[in-house]
Amino acid sequence: MKIRFFIFFCLMACLSMPMRGADNLTLKSPDGRMEVTFYLLDGSPHYELMRDGKPVVLASRMGFELEWRDDLAHAFVLKDVQRSTFDEVWHPVWGEEANIRNHYNEMLVTIEQPVGSVASMDHSTEKRATVMQIRFRLYDDGLGFRYEFPMKYNGVDNALVCFWFKEELTEFALTGNHTAWWIPGDYDTQEYNYTESRLSQIDSLYEKGHEHGGWPWTDFSRTGVQTALQMKTDDGLYINIHEAATLDYPTMHLNLEKPFTFRTWLCPDAAGYKGRMQAPCHTPWRTVMVCDKATDVLRSRLILNLNDPCVLKDVSWIHPVKYMGVWWEMISGKSTWNYTNDFPSVKLGETDFVHAKPNGTHGANNANVRRYIDFAAKHGFDALLIEGWNIGWEDWYGKQKDFVFDFLTPYPDFDLPALNKYAHEKGIRLIMHHESSASTVNYERWMEKAYTMMNRYGYDAVKSGYVGTIIPYAEGHYSQPINNHYHYAIVEAAKHHIMVNAHEAVRPTGLCRTWPNMIGNESAMGTEFRERIHPGHTTILPFTRLQGGPMDYTPGIFEPDMGKIVPWGKKMQHTICNQLGLYVTFYSPLQMAADFPEHYEPYMDAFQFIKDVAVDWDTSIYIAAEPGAYIVTARKPKISSLNKAADGLATLPDGKKGVISSASQFVYGLTNQTSLSGLTPKDTWYIGGITDEKAREFAIKLDFLTPGKTYDAIIYTDGKDASGIPNDSYNPYSYTITTKKVNSKTVLKLKMAPCGGFAVSIRERQ
Amino acid sequence: MKIRFFIFFCLMACLSMPMRGADNLTLKSPDGRMEVTFYLLDGSPHYELMRDGKPVVLASRMGFELEWRDDLAHAFVLKDVQRSTFDEVWHPVWGEEANIRNHYNEMLVTIEQPVGSVASMDHSTEKRATVMQIRFRLYDDGLGFRYEFPMKYNGVDNALVCFWFKEELTEFALTGNHTAWWIPGDYDTQEYNYTESRLSQIDSLYEKGHEHGGWPWTDFSRTGVQTALQMKTDDGLYINIHEAATLDYPTMHLNLEKPFTFRTWLCPDAAGYKGRMQAPCHTPWRTVMVCDKATDVLRSRLILNLNDPCVLKDVSWIHPVKYMGVWWEMISGKSTWNYTNDFPSVKLGETDFVHAKPNGTHGANNANVRRYIDFAAKHGFDALLIEGWNIGWEDWYGKQKDFVFDFLTPYPDFDLPALNKYAHEKGIRLIMHHESSASTVNYERWMEKAYTMMNRYGYDAVKSGYVGTIIPYAEGHYSQPINNHYHYAIVEAAKHHIMVNAHEAVRPTGLCRTWPNMIGNESAMGTEFRERIHPGHTTILPFTRLQGGPMDYTPGIFEPDMGKIVPWGKKMQHTICNQLGLYVTFYSPLQMAADFPEHYEPYMDAFQFIKDVAVDWDTSIYIAAEPGAYIVTARKPKISSLNKAADGLATLPDGKKGVISSASQFVYGLTNQTSLSGLTPKDTWYIGGITDEKAREFAIKLDFLTPGKTYDAIIYTDGKDASGIPNDSYNPYSYTITTKKVNSKTVLKLKMAPCGGFAVSIRERQ
Repeated sequence: MKIRFFIFFCLMACLSMPMRGADNLTLKSPDGRMEVTFYLLDGSPHYELMRDGKPVVLASRMGFELEWRDDLAHAFVLKDVQRSTFDEVWHPVWGEEANIRNHYNEMLVTIEQPVGSVASMDHSTEKRATVMQIRFRLYDDGLGFRYEFPMKYNGVDNALVCFWFKEELTEFALTGNHTAWWIPGDYDTQEYNYTESRLSQIDSLYEKGHEHGGWPWTDFSRTGVQTALQMKTDDGLYINIHEAATLDYPTMHLNLEKPFTFRTWLCPDAAGYKGRMQAPCHTPWRTVMVCDKATDVLRSRLILNLNDPCVLKDVSWIHPVKYMGVWWEMISGKSTWNYTNDFPSVKLGETDFVHAKPNGTHGANNANVRRYIDFAAKHGFDALLIEGWNIGWEDWYGKQKDFVFDFLTPYPDFDLPALNKYAHEKGIRLIMHHESSASTVNYERWMEKAYTMMNRYGYDAVKSGYVGTIIPYAEGHYSQPINNHYHYAIVEAAKHHIMVNAHEAVRPTGLCRTWPNMIGNESAMGTEFRERIHPGHTTILPFTRLQGGPMDYTPGIFEPDMGKIVPWGKKMQHTICNQLGLYVTFYSPLQMAADFPEHYEPYMDAFQFIKDVAVDWDTSIYIAAEPGAYIVTARKPKISSLNKAADGLATLPDGKKGVISSASQFVYGLTNQTSLSGLTPKDTWYIGGITDEKAREFAIKLDFLTPGKTYDAIIYTDGKDASGIPNDSYNPYSYTITTKKVNSKTVLKLKMAPCGGFAVSIRERQ
Repeated sequence: MKIRFFIFFCLMACLSMPMRGADNLTLKSPDGRMEVTFYLLDGSPHYELMRDGKPVVLASRMGFELEWRDDLAHAFVLKDVQRSTFDEVWHPVWGEEANIRNHYNEMLVTIEQPVGSVASMDHSTEKRATVMQIRFRLYDDGLGFRYEFPMKYNGVDNALVCFWFKEELTEFALTGNHTAWWIPGDYDTQEYNYTESRLSQIDSLYEKGHEHGGWPWTDFSRTGVQTALQMKTDDGLYINIHEAATLDYPTMHLNLEKPFTFRTWLCPDAAGYKGRMQAPCHTPWRTVMVCDKATDVLRSRLILNLNDPCVLKDVSWIHPVKYMGVWWEMISGKSTWNYTNDFPSVKLGETDFVHAKPNGTHGANNANVRRYIDFAAKHGFDALLIEGWNIGWEDWYGKQKDFVFDFLTPYPDFDLPALNKYAHEKGIRLIMHHESSASTVNYERWMEKAYTMMNRYGYDAVKSGYVGTIIPYAEGHYSQPINNHYHYAIVEAAKHHIMVNAHEAVRPTGLCRTWPNMIGNESAMGTEFRERIHPGHTTILPFTRLQGGPMDYTPGIFEPDMGKIVPWGKKMQHTICNQLGLYVTFYSPLQMAADFPEHYEPYMDAFQFIKDVAVDWDTSIYIAAEPGAYIVTARKPKISSLNKAADGLATLPDGKKGVISSASQFVYGLTNQTSLSGLTPKDTWYIGGITDEKAREFAIKLDFLTPGKTYDAIIYTDGKDASGIPNDSYNPYSYTITTKKVNSKTVLKLKMAPCGGFAVSIRERQ
């Protein structure tokens, strides 16, 4: 096989290299290890990518098929090339590190279809040349390129003004039968388990890839996969294909059209088009990350760097959030979103909820919400999400009803003003919930009123949801019009100083750099898919889903045996220490402690880690990682963010002073809830580790600690009898907490049980 | 042929009659002449309609095909029948008469598919019976019936809760090869010339029927036609099929599936469904009007009566409007909507209009608008429409751009606050224009802000437009979701006390009874299709398009030779007197004098009729009519409406007193613009007549005048050499104005030139 492959590769190289012609344009990365080449092959644009002189992407076609005119894939001549270098350090509002370097070399290639070389049904445009530009940015860890369509070129109008894509033709011709971690291509859901396979196996694993998937789902090819697609070569190179800054454009999937060659597969709109363009405009960036080590993939900021800087002048209202929720009760089956069982058919404005008979299982009732507020406040959380607060849940699901929710009217047992007042008095913000039921039409009709009501009562964050079949009908979740809706919701929310955490929306592509009020997304299988998630799932997501932005994974389930809640409940495949590890291995500025208060009460010593851990970081160190197997990460909190979270509480609408978060207490060494003023934060680190179904042991060098300083470490590890595998040995509850004096020379040896993990809090000694 | 048809008919009768079974349920009209029969034929619901014992609609199937379950067309058993009678007189806010009698006999039939008789993919519903009701209302002049789906029947839940129609199966089996006046079935436009043919010719006239149609167009069958469909039997009976009260449902077209049998053909949504239903609910009314005379069709209030009463508690802000517009300038080619020729591609928020180079042809500029305000105010008009006031027209058309307009930002040369102030000081309201460019998505995003701005500046009416391909993509103009949008716009406008005149929206179905702020619609070829409209067109519309509600036809073109405006202009096929006649033969509470001020100046004596004529009526008398040939109508103004129009002006936001309309002056006998208070209105009538390309003469008995009173008549007739036919004899300008003393015994002999007409103002002598 290897010999055969070698011959194949030589043939490929022979076929492509000599045909490049004399117009080869090359660009090297700042460190000189990466090189991208662009050329026209018989008028057709192509690119190749090399690392250390070896091909990563072979000769790959570029361009588009268009409606009403010839394609943008032939008859091109080279017009111009411009080169530049860029190097800056920027500071995200929140993130995995306080300082991000954006360093690349750029090449802007202008190509033209001359007048008369292509046909168009719009005869007015046939008299003008067609100009397309391709902008390459080459980083040390990867390539980004995008297509640009100027309105004018050299003072002359471009033939392309308004035009529609039937297909994007961009290829990624890989060099071999790499290992890939993939989920099936789908226009409506990313909620799949990852499949690890060779590229050549994707077709035959189509059915398996769809097992336990979300709903609705809409496939397009047996060899279609989603991005970010993480791959690994037999030489140990980590290649990741994704996109960045997807705005006013459909989402990019990939289809394996030839052996080892993916072509972009855009999500069409309801009329079948894959991009409605209006010059001047450009596509999102297509990215190919290339790293020597798996940890370098986690360290890469390629996607964020390719997005535009923050457009919000005032970001003082944006802050990280550690929250709890009246949510897992409904997910687990203990409670219901709906208030009554009286109504098989609800019509808002007609159905009388005031006189309906309560079903007694409604989770979002005043007493229960107060119970959560009390617990969250006592333990220094910032916020509480409550789902099922608003009328309409009785028949909301699966009916493709348009007017399911009004986003304004609470159930009779949810006293919205009083609960907000109560929460604010205790230093807790309520998080609003807007389930759109996937009707963007209806949500947009109510959005301004809903955001305005949030402002009135002091909500500053919303979890939005897009469960079900999209309305407008025949649109998918990731088509251009619906991607535009998600962005519209972010932009309108920003006007109201509202942070957005959208679920079932398109997976992010780094837009949170530009719009940092986009503090979270789901867009993958999270905790709620408890019974379907493979143990290795959370070790893959940071390589794939999280490349585009943080995920509201909702960790922290301390009672993983759901059978103790409802008879049909299954055993979740994780230990308590695995859940603790996630708070560090999974980056998000929005972290949940998802379980019930009563499930934390027996384990308050372990719960202490969730209280202490920060959610916004100055520095992140990726100690060890392999997709599908394990991740170990260390992070140092961003102090200014902790201050801001506390400050945020101090500015509650009711004028009362909020409490200081538990994480701040840990970092500042406070034992009581007193002021931070005048205190110096302690040098603090957190380490988290998670594993798949295999037990593992890691020796962690603490060489990132400041030499000469002494630290106290609190170490949370799986107990000897711990196991997250749901067999006779299932024991997710077993853990050990030890304390230890450590310094920069310490090596911590930490074991993880099957489906387990560990967590460490480290604080500079007084 | 006739013998053959007779045999065919007997066979038809023989085939259907004996199979009815014993369950025949019959209902008679109040006058006993109409009879509808309902029965189950082998479990399948059917109806028949008779007049004077003769069949009008033969055995016709009823029911639906559904998604996910068996159809609603078989396996039914009869459960119940309830009968009732209704008789009332109601008073429309505006209309053709002040008092409308709503008198019908009703039969509500309940039929059931018993448990186990049909299959469903939703097994939970298989355990419940499926209940459908059909409500028949039989009037002296026609039948209405609709399907109803109760949530419960006899205390038991209906199996139907949320369900989707794949097809509506309702048939209209006609008794012969009637003459029909039809336009092709289409999901996107009603802008067609009518074709007069036998039913059997519809297929072969498919291409001809599409000649000169609007854009975009979307057909579905060579034998598809739109409603209202006017037909005439060889016996001289006038049959009209239409629908009433179409809300939350797709528009009904008809497809001739068998000889002389139409089946309903609903406009599908983007996913192909033809109705998303949620119990309790009902379909619109399906109507079959049957009249002995053509004038009875015009007199019928069947469609309005089948709509719900007005839901607005306060209608004081709704008033009839006689208006002019900066509009025909753009339609005719004299001016442009766009302000500049600089931008082949506009992006709102980015494109700089302030520094753009004006093109010098922009119609909606301050000076021109003031000129129109001056003219309109001088001649007692109520309002002035201005199109092209807002940025975005440079590239608005045909590109399926989403964000074409913001409905807020005027061009640099349109000083919105100053022009409103100027207009209000002269007693003129400006009419807002919202061209949505058929993007309901974008329009809804801006609607609240746009209506709020209208309130701020004192606009109380909007002309909205839906030109182009609908966005959301793959929706047609008449699908359920888009019909819902039009209604949403009406409801939201009512909250702002705004009257709506929607163009390119769905043709109305009498909803203006329920929402009288819906003061107009286009939804047919109006004046703007100047070069395509057949001369007989305006004699057909009152039988078809106008059955559902008034049309903003925009009459009053005094310079029909468009070649005098632009070199490519064509000769419109009408005389000046034809245009005058339209103000009476065409009912609308919103009437325009569409031509330029400078085109009226040479003909101020004829223009006087447009100034005098009312636009809201106490009584209407349909003197003579034949579709495609001629209409002569006499109407008596509603005095309260004239007062309201004057009052309306007196409540301008700037507190200034408005002028009294010219029509009020005529009715009250005022010679100067002084107060109406203390004056008694004169007994007043207007008569209008129009003809197709044939010259005609009518002898009109004025027996509707009050006996014993003496009146002054001003008679506007085509001159002897007048002709609207664009050949060498073309002379649309020739007219004669005579005055005459008349009384209830007078018979006026009035001639109409080819494409001509006449108009008469009659006022009680002092």
